[in-house]
Amino acid sequence: MSHIYNIPYDLIVRALEEDGAASDITTLSTVPEQEQAEANIITRHAGVIAGLAVVVAVFRQLDERVVIELAVQDGATVQAGERIASISGPARSILSAERVALNFLGHLSGIATLTATCVRAVEGTRARILDTRKTTPGLRALEKAAVQMGGGHNHRFGLHDGVLIKDNHIKAAGGVMPAVRAARQFAPHLLKVEVECERLEEVQEALEARADVILLDNMPEVLMRNAVELIRRLSPNTLIEASGSIGTNPARLAAVAATGVDFISLGALTHSAPNFDVSLEFA
Amino acid sequence: MSHIYNIPYDLIVRALEEDGAASDITTLSTVPEQEQAEANIITRHAGVIAGLAVVVAVFRQLDERVVIELAVQDGATVQAGERIASISGPARSILSAERVALNFLGHLSGIATLTATCVRAVEGTRARILDTRKTTPGLRALEKAAVQMGGGHNHRFGLHDGVLIKDNHIKAAGGVMPAVRAARQFAPHLLKVEVECERLEEVQEALEARADVILLDNMPEVLMRNAVELIRRLSPNTLIEASGSIGTNPARLAAVAATGVDFISLGALTHSAPNFDVSLEFA
Amino acid sequence: MSHIYNIPYDLIVRALEEDGAASDITTLSTVPEQEQAEANIITRHAGVIAGLAVVVAVFRQLDERVVIELAVQDGATVQAGERIASISGPARSILSAERVALNFLGHLSGIATLTATCVRAVEGTRARILDTRKTTPGLRALEKAAVQMGGGHNHRFGLHDGVLIKDNHIKAAGGVMPAVRAARQFAPHLLKVEVECERLEEVQEALEARADVILLDNMPEVLMRNAVELIRRLSPNTLIEASGSIGTNPARLAAVAATGVDFISLGALTHSAPNFDVSLEFA
Amino acid sequence: MSHIYNIPYDLIVRALEEDGAASDITTLSTVPEQEQAEANIITRHAGVIAGLAVVVAVFRQLDERVVIELAVQDGATVQAGERIASISGPARSILSAERVALNFLGHLSGIATLTATCVRAVEGTRARILDTRKTTPGLRALEKAAVQMGGGHNHRFGLHDGVLIKDNHIKAAGGVMPAVRAARQFAPHLLKVEVECERLEEVQEALEARADVILLDNMPEVLMRNAVELIRRLSPNTLIEASGSIGTNPARLAAVAATGVDFISLGALTHSAPNFDVSLEFA
Amino acid sequence: MSHIYNIPYDLIVRALEEDGAASDITTLSTVPEQEQAEANIITRHAGVIAGLAVVVAVFRQLDERVVIELAVQDGATVQAGERIASISGPARSILSAERVALNFLGHLSGIATLTATCVRAVEGTRARILDTRKTTPGLRALEKAAVQMGGGHNHRFGLHDGVLIKDNHIKAAGGVMPAVRAARQFAPHLLKVEVECERLEEVQEALEARADVILLDNMPEVLMRNAVELIRRLSPNTLIEASGSIGTNPARLAAVAATGVDFISLGALTHSAPNFDVSLEFA
Amino acid sequence: MSHIYNIPYDLIVRALEEDGAASDITTLSTVPEQEQAEANIITRHAGVIAGLAVVVAVFRQLDERVVIELAVQDGATVQAGERIASISGPARSILSAERVALNFLGHLSGIATLTATCVRAVEGTRARILDTRKTTPGLRALEKAAVQMGGGHNHRFGLHDGVLIKDNHIKAAGGVMPAVRAARQFAPHLLKVEVECERLEEVQEALEARADVILLDNMPEVLMRNAVELIRRLSPNTLIEASGSIGTNPARLAAVAATGVDFISLGALTHSAPNFDVSLEFA
Repeated sequence: MSHIYNIPYDLIVRALEEDGAASDITTLSTVPEQEQAEANIITRHAGVIAGLAVVVAVFRQLDERVVIELAVQDGATVQAGERIASISGPARSILSAERVALNFLGHLSGIATLTATCVRAVEGTRARILDTRKTTPGLRALEKAAVQMGGGHNHRFGLHDGVLIKDNHIKAAGGVMPAVRAARQFAPHLLKVEVECERLEEVQEALEARADVILLDNMPEVLMRNAVELIRRLSPNTLIEASGSIGTNPARLAAVAATGVDFISLGALTHSAPNFDVSLEFA
Repeated sequence: MSHIYNIPYDLIVRALEEDGAASDITTLSTVPEQEQAEANIITRHAGVIAGLAVVVAVFRQLDERVVIELAVQDGATVQAGERIASISGPARSILSAERVALNFLGHLSGIATLTATCVRAVEGTRARILDTRKTTPGLRALEKAAVQMGGGHNHRFGLHDGVLIKDNHIKAAGGVMPAVRAARQFAPHLLKVEVECERLEEVQEALEARADVILLDNMPEVLMRNAVELIRRLSPNTLIEASGSIGTNPARLAAVAATGVDFISLGALTHSAPNFDVSLEFA
Repeated sequence: MSHIYNIPYDLIVRALEEDGAASDITTLSTVPEQEQAEANIITRHAGVIAGLAVVVAVFRQLDERVVIELAVQDGATVQAGERIASISGPARSILSAERVALNFLGHLSGIATLTATCVRAVEGTRARILDTRKTTPGLRALEKAAVQMGGGHNHRFGLHDGVLIKDNHIKAAGGVMPAVRAARQFAPHLLKVEVECERLEEVQEALEARADVILLDNMPEVLMRNAVELIRRLSPNTLIEASGSIGTNPARLAAVAATGVDFISLGALTHSAPNFDVSLEFA
Repeated sequence: MSHIYNIPYDLIVRALEEDGAASDITTLSTVPEQEQAEANIITRHAGVIAGLAVVVAVFRQLDERVVIELAVQDGATVQAGERIASISGPARSILSAERVALNFLGHLSGIATLTATCVRAVEGTRARILDTRKTTPGLRALEKAAVQMGGGHNHRFGLHDGVLIKDNHIKAAGGVMPAVRAARQFAPHLLKVEVECERLEEVQEALEARADVILLDNMPEVLMRNAVELIRRLSPNTLIEASGSIGTNPARLAAVAATGVDFISLGALTHSAPNFDVSLEFA
Repeated sequence: MSHIYNIPYDLIVRALEEDGAASDITTLSTVPEQEQAEANIITRHAGVIAGLAVVVAVFRQLDERVVIELAVQDGATVQAGERIASISGPARSILSAERVALNFLGHLSGIATLTATCVRAVEGTRARILDTRKTTPGLRALEKAAVQMGGGHNHRFGLHDGVLIKDNHIKAAGGVMPAVRAARQFAPHLLKVEVECERLEEVQEALEARADVILLDNMPEVLMRNAVELIRRLSPNTLIEASGSIGTNPARLAAVAATGVDFISLGALTHSAPNFDVSLEFA
Repeated sequence: MSHIYNIPYDLIVRALEEDGAASDITTLSTVPEQEQAEANIITRHAGVIAGLAVVVAVFRQLDERVVIELAVQDGATVQAGERIASISGPARSILSAERVALNFLGHLSGIATLTATCVRAVEGTRARILDTRKTTPGLRALEKAAVQMGGGHNHRFGLHDGVLIKDNHIKAAGGVMPAVRAARQFAPHLLKVEVECERLEEVQEALEARADVILLDNMPEVLMRNAVELIRRLSPNTLIEASGSIGTNPARLAAVAATGVDFISLGALTHSAPNFDVSLEFA
């Protein structure tokens, strides 16, 4: 519904610093201080754009006099060679901020583009494509926003805003039932409880413990289909998530979606999306 | 020679915070406070490991009582299913720090692994594989260290520790000659001057301006070979770098290396390396 | 189950700095550098202790040589005049850190003590005492931990880990039904949806929209009883929270609990708890 | 004279972050991005307002487009039901910043209101009402400003801007005389020296040591009266402060003031002031 | 009495970062990782040492394995060629931290040495040598500690811990009397009030306004002597400070001290002290 | 060519905080809140101005309403008594920010002025005056900019942007040749390699190892002249730097420059420049 993310000013400052953007010796020595320039950001292939608000913030963080006019909005589907933004202002500042701005844009648009591919693969099914907590350290909020821009949905943001009980939790708690009970006792009452299951007996136990959501982990499609049927029959309100090395192959995604799950979560969206190639070209 | 990087404590703290590692409701409610655990980090495929020192720091940042014993060192080549570290300590802390630790390890080992592939592709030539400034915002130092661990070399760290004159600089300065002269006047005397060229005439001009290094940008292999010959003949001490959408295909890399360049720089090493898959398994 | 909170090192540093603890002119001029001291922290009235881990961290942040031995643990019920900790080490450091340590301890124990009173008032009912987001800026995590130590439970931590739809949200969304639907579409699937209601018709609507939790806001007890009956009859799994200027009067709390609600949330726990008086006395 | 305080931007950012104000899932999903709103901040009882400049900064920190018009100024005495500010701008931003803004306002106005009560209780005497260092960690500057807004005066800000010699300092220094002498030798010459006394003999010693200020600690009123007479007779320029569990009961305050002291310092002003209740209501 | 200062960890980290101490390319490439070294810090001329605790912290901040043994303490008077510390540990870390450590030590010892010269110049008089607020931005606490180590005393730390009324304050307040009265009304009661005077009439006014301290600014010695006599006669308890371009010439200092003032404050101590030369030599 | 430096907002905030600029009790109590003022910054002696952009930022950091009009630019040569800036705005803010602003300006202009003297001393020779890494911790970027403003050039910024091989590196690497080779292997290819030499044999070795730059350390002028001749004869492209306790005496500088070196680096520029005296005077 809403592609919302905070501009990560801290990270932008850090990125500009690590690039030495304010000590761009090449530019300082070759480009006169008063020189003005106009430039465009151009896509090199088709995809979904994410991170434009960060791009704007990067340039303006370095120099408030830079003006950026966006030709498309975050979440837009673009073609190769499309102009997505125009930039004007002091030539030095445009050159010195260029790399950091494009690094953000290429990384986030790469995620949005891969997400969009996965979303398309499950179109017509009830399955939503979800991200995971397998994100690049320090960039989670941006990467999860990029997933939204690509049409995906976000799983919990972190360990604090959802209960997801896995194998080791179950062992430590002495079973699925006591684990779920402990979580309900301890967790704030607005958080649901999800339980990870690898086998049908575990699904059975999770249902008995009245888990709100059941995660089918690393299941072959046949087994997954059986699990979905079992859950739908016994507890129609329970939500079902598929996860575990599913990958981003469209046929595989379609097959998983066809089992009837509510969600498919994919680490690859955020940890293995190839860069989306954009360039900044002076007019 | 030396795989050196600082432990990025700020980023580790930020990553643990964004994951809510200290508010891991699931673990807090299901795992008793006194429970101890032993676990191993296991590879899921072959590659080159990078980021183990960060992994150690992540666990110990969350809980100083966690003990990690490394089975291999950063830069090690590993097989699928290999144990690369053992972890023991409070079960809660191991579970709550796991994802952040693996996110670092998977990302950096992915870069080292891709780099190693590229380095192997040019073995037997004089060409070194270099990274670029196309890194993930906030992670440049780690990613450049991962490139080293994979056998690659680092290009300049940022805009402050090297002069690289591109098209727009040349235009603004009024030509290659005045651009190089301005850089030598302004830049600290320990920095070399590199000039980007797309055509042979530009190479000629760069040689006349006595650039220390010439970057051959986006040149077809035939043209690149001509450029290398020209440079070697006229100025044998000038260094030569190839760059521009070369990609990580081994055959393409071998062909570029065969032109006789000194360096091949590859943005893909850091912006498009797929995640290296590792898992943490309780003993 | 678990009284967990992170030691807020940032806040401790800030508090020591704002108190000028390292520039304690009085102590530096009158107490010799080598002087050692032993001291006790003594309660001045009965209550529940919270914040001891912070107290330890405060003293040790200023001087690692200070040793603190706790006589009770966080969450302990104590009498007036009870010794709760012994401190030994450099006299200067004990004196200079004393006020900051006691400020934390008095504030948090005040909250735990008030919470315990409220919890006792509803004993024997199903009602849990909850805190709210009406906390002191910068101290939310500590204050919510103190509520736990007093036997209370935590409501959502912030606006990100739970959906609570109020009047203005309903108006903006065009009704309870579309508001709940929008939240389910947008919110991560592990978050429940709670709806605030002031009148029975609103309760009816919330039930129709299948809210997971219904908040009865500012209802007289009779009305609240009717609402509870309505909800229990139509939707036995829906959770019910009472809120809105209920205050901490035990009789009032008992009456509210007697209506059969699941939760009573009280802003006063964190925003109006009087300080718990403790003193540090040299042995 | 001047109600001056810095806007604590760091703390505001921290408070908005801990409330997840930028991830207000409820508002993001139910309130359209373009929706504008107008709202008023209304008092729920009578008192003295403090913290309006912080309120303005909170809303504008989240969204610069929010406009706040103040109906009263910090330090104003208000009635129940009075409008103290009007707010207009994007509905989402107003809703998401509301709680943090009111948390500041309620806390600080609570302090100002309690202070004003105490100041009124000693009207007509020479006694000034002072705060202490018993403040909420991280909020001292704001709380001390709120005391000023309620008509009180500030004691020293911390351990660095005044000398206050207590029992343990005297013991360590070997007596009142050497303690005062050491302080005068070490402390910057613009700082006065105050000595805490519980008995008349100590007052006598403090006078002999020529303390600039004498603090009468935990004295019954009769003893306090004797101490004041002794000091006034022997050293008319010496200032006198009463302290030690005096509390905020008006009759008790009047009695203490009637002994003729110059200052009455009260920890309760900042550590036990109940919240001042305000609400934000959409127009 | 006490040479106290906090180790400025923030500044140390910042200094190591700005020196790139963790990216010491020369050392990383030429010195083997396992190489151990022993080194001494040697003075190159005579003076007073300040900053040794910072030196220790710098080396250990970079590498906890470095061990430093101090041969003298802060405040020690040393001769040229004297060994003041021995350092052992990893050769890389010693080399990479050397410059930052010596930069602190040379700067602070320079201040202590200049201060000691000034203190000696007024020996036998009642005059104390004071520093001012004319310090290097970010280093005030260290520089003021260095002044103490050289035998000087500190003036107020900043604008918050003392009242010093100058010309413009007097004009704005409408005279010396109202200015002093306003300050007494507003300032915490533990702060004294000092008034700056350039002429005898101003001294007269300051005495009438009962200033606690009078600053004689830029007065020729004859006038200063008259002012001191006037003050001593009319108000023997009033303290007297001389200031204003006095400089560090010993004869001039002795002459100023001979006028009978209590304090001589010197900006040059902190803003113009030449570096104290030390070197680190490998054993 | 370009006097570029970033405004160090962090340091400005820190400097204003350490001066208590926002708690200027004297000004707050004596100067009415609405009072406006106009003031000038006046030089007290001749020199070169540096740091004006920081001055502007300091005043505006404290109060955005302050307006500063510069009469000269950074790098300008000024006479004693010259007005370099006019300031207008709220009197309180001008008074409270004055000291911090002047501390920056006096320190940086002192460096620029001393640099200009040294640059004049070598006029007509090929020698450039360079700074070193002997800077005040935390102020390196500003101090190096001030050197540029005085007409000097910057040496490497830190240990990361240049290779400078000294004695201990040579010993550890096993000779000049292996040290240079190791550096070329490890360092990014845009960094030159400089070798420090004290004797002619070392110069010979450095030439054989094909160092890019040779540093003549602590050489008497005769020896230095021989070294220069040797280098020019054998390797005309090798750059030559003189360093080592050369000092800022003009005659000495002229003599060193006359040996024909390319660079003279001087620690005194940044660690021993006396303050440049400026004052702020109300109009």
